[in-house]
Amino acid sequence: MSNSEHTPPKKDLESPATDNTAPAAETGTGLGVAPITRRWRREDMLKRGSLALRGLAFLFSLLAFIIMASNKHGDWKDFDKYEEYRYLLAIAILSTFYTAGQVLRHVQELSTGKQMLEKRTSAMIVAYLLVSSASTAVPLTNRMREGADNIFTDSSAAAISMGFFAFISLALSALISGYKLSTQSYI
Amino acid sequence: MSNSEHTPPKKDLESPATDNTAPAAETGTGLGVAPITRRWRREDMLKRGSLALRGLAFLFSLLAFIIMASNKHGDWKDFDKYEEYRYLLAIAILSTFYTAGQVLRHVQELSTGKQMLEKRTSAMIVAYLLVSSASTAVPLTNRMREGADNIFTDSSAAAISMGFFAFISLALSALISGYKLSTQSYI
Repeated sequence: MSNSEHTPPKKDLESPATDNTAPAAETGTGLGVAPITRRWRREDMLKRGSLALRGLAFLFSLLAFIIMASNKHGDWKDFDKYEEYRYLLAIAILSTFYTAGQVLRHVQELSTGKQMLEKRTSAMIVAYLLVSSASTAVPLTNRMREGADNIFTDSSAAAISMGFFAFISLALSALISGYKLSTQSYI
Repeated sequence: MSNSEHTPPKKDLESPATDNTAPAAETGTGLGVAPITRRWRREDMLKRGSLALRGLAFLFSLLAFIIMASNKHGDWKDFDKYEEYRYLLAIAILSTFYTAGQVLRHVQELSTGKQMLEKRTSAMIVAYLLVSSASTAVPLTNRMREGADNIFTDSSAAAISMGFFAFISLALSALISGYKLSTQSYI
């Protein structure tokens, strides 16, 4: 935090004579401008990381939704005969819509440059629902695979894995949002 | 945030002539001392609320642990014949030790007046484990109760409820810690 003598070298190259405030900014690095621009850059990186994680969560939720919804093979091999799989499908649909809305809002805010509202609480609630539904479906699938190992149990296992991946992405995104909260006002 | 004319009335009563800095503090209310003391009081309340919630989480974890560990009634009515119940027991033991350590550290920090370190991430991880284990054990118990309704299924349902209560307490505590993070540096 004390190495404030590193001035950004790109600034000299890309704008040598565009405005008159550039030399003032150069001499101002000793007064703490460089740490602030470094913080801005880190915040921007965190925002993009959070967006990427929510995009991943959307992708995994959508995959869990599609795989589980198409998991009907007749007889006992229908997902809607088991409450665990119905629960997983319901939460996957909810998470798909939630993360899609989040990503759209993120992109809109990144493009317009407005302040991003924190939605850590709702992301944590959806993450709790995802981990609950994914872990509920695990024992049933385990018991089925002891007896028979076919396309139905494989699809169920794939949907459960996608649910866990969506949970991990969303939980990490909520963590990053918390980190943003803790550092955004130290400037 | 603008009603800074409310001076704390207790200060006049409890320390009328103990030190010489009291009148200076009284005249300083117009310069923003009252919002700061109010913020301190709110932070103190949040700390106590977080402590109470972690105490509740400890209590519920301990209850889930005891109820599930004593849930052995012979024949098929042993908790350790089912992986869901073993998972719930393991997470209840982990959560009991974790919340006990948290409460002890909280009390120590409240009494010594030191800065409380944030442990939101670990609390969230334990909360994820609690909700995962509690919801995993639900479908098995439901299926058993369709066939037979005895002391084994009742004890299992009680332990699952305690697990959910412990999850709710710990998740709320993690939320309060996040709120502390977001306001602690606006002074």
